[in-house]
Amino acid sequence: MRVIGIDPGLRNMGWGLVDLKQSRISHVANGICRSKGTDLAERLHSLFIQLEEVLKNFKPDTAAVETTFVNKDGAASLKLGHARAIALLVPAKAGLPVSEYAPNRVKKAVVGVGHADKRQVEHMVKMQLPGVVLNGVDATDALAIALCHAHYGCSPNRYQVVMEKVL
Amino acid sequence: MRVIGIDPGLRNMGWGLVDLKQSRISHVANGICRSKGTDLAERLHSLFIQLEEVLKNFKPDTAAVETTFVNKDGAASLKLGHARAIALLVPAKAGLPVSEYAPNRVKKAVVGVGHADKRQVEHMVKMQLPGVVLNGVDATDALAIALCHAHYGCSPNRYQVVMEKVL
Repeated sequence: MRVIGIDPGLRNMGWGLVDLKQSRISHVANGICRSKGTDLAERLHSLFIQLEEVLKNFKPDTAAVETTFVNKDGAASLKLGHARAIALLVPAKAGLPVSEYAPNRVKKAVVGVGHADKRQVEHMVKMQLPGVVLNGVDATDALAIALCHAHYGCSPNRYQVVMEKVL
Repeated sequence: MRVIGIDPGLRNMGWGLVDLKQSRISHVANGICRSKGTDLAERLHSLFIQLEEVLKNFKPDTAAVETTFVNKDGAASLKLGHARAIALLVPAKAGLPVSEYAPNRVKKAVVGVGHADKRQVEHMVKMQLPGVVLNGVDATDALAIALCHAHYGCSPNRYQVVMEKVL
């Protein structure tokens, strides 16, 4: 089972892939799609093309995308909504099931606490994927999302075990 | 010159096409893409498929999409952002230039005032496209966007004339 995690952003969209074989998780690849062009339609299209290319190259079986804190900054929420649509659309278009996880749930799954900082997340991603070379913060976050989905989402038994520990 | 106007919405995405030949504008078609499926990724994918089909059938040369009032309801802004991304992506993917217009500008172009209500917009769309059969409010709004683009966006001269009248 190959999992892609996607950290949506309009400027930089992080992606990370892990393989789950029975209880063993290993790193496949990680990177960032950077939007190009001047207007919004062009930028979204460039993210769409790059993310389709990632899926074509690595052929994941399932996808996970981070949800968003909704805050009072409507303009920021609107922008992020545009980017998230691409992150959700591309795997759905490829026929993959797409799961969504709140940022706190991702951190809890990877670090053990919901309010971990970036450095803790990076540390634990490196611990869980020995030898991984991380291509930036957004790619690290995307791998954390993929790890969360590998722990929680890919097997009902694993999910149950993790939930029991958490609750 | 064939113009498609798109009124983005996550549940219903209105579309409307007009032809502009010299100074003459005529109706081509209008309708609504309705999202299907239970989760967000599926719904976005269903809108994407339907909107691609509309472009394939009617082959517009240029597209116009309505921008959004950003309000304090971050959740609503986020949802609308998802839908707008599809409305912007599909024509960009087809190689069309994509323009964006604020709702007030659309109303000003079609009705003459920026705070016109739905009935006034419908009345003026019918006046400008004699014999048109409107397939719901979202399709009417989409035709208004297409008319706005036909007036403002397709010819620099027309744009200048309209702007002089407005300012």
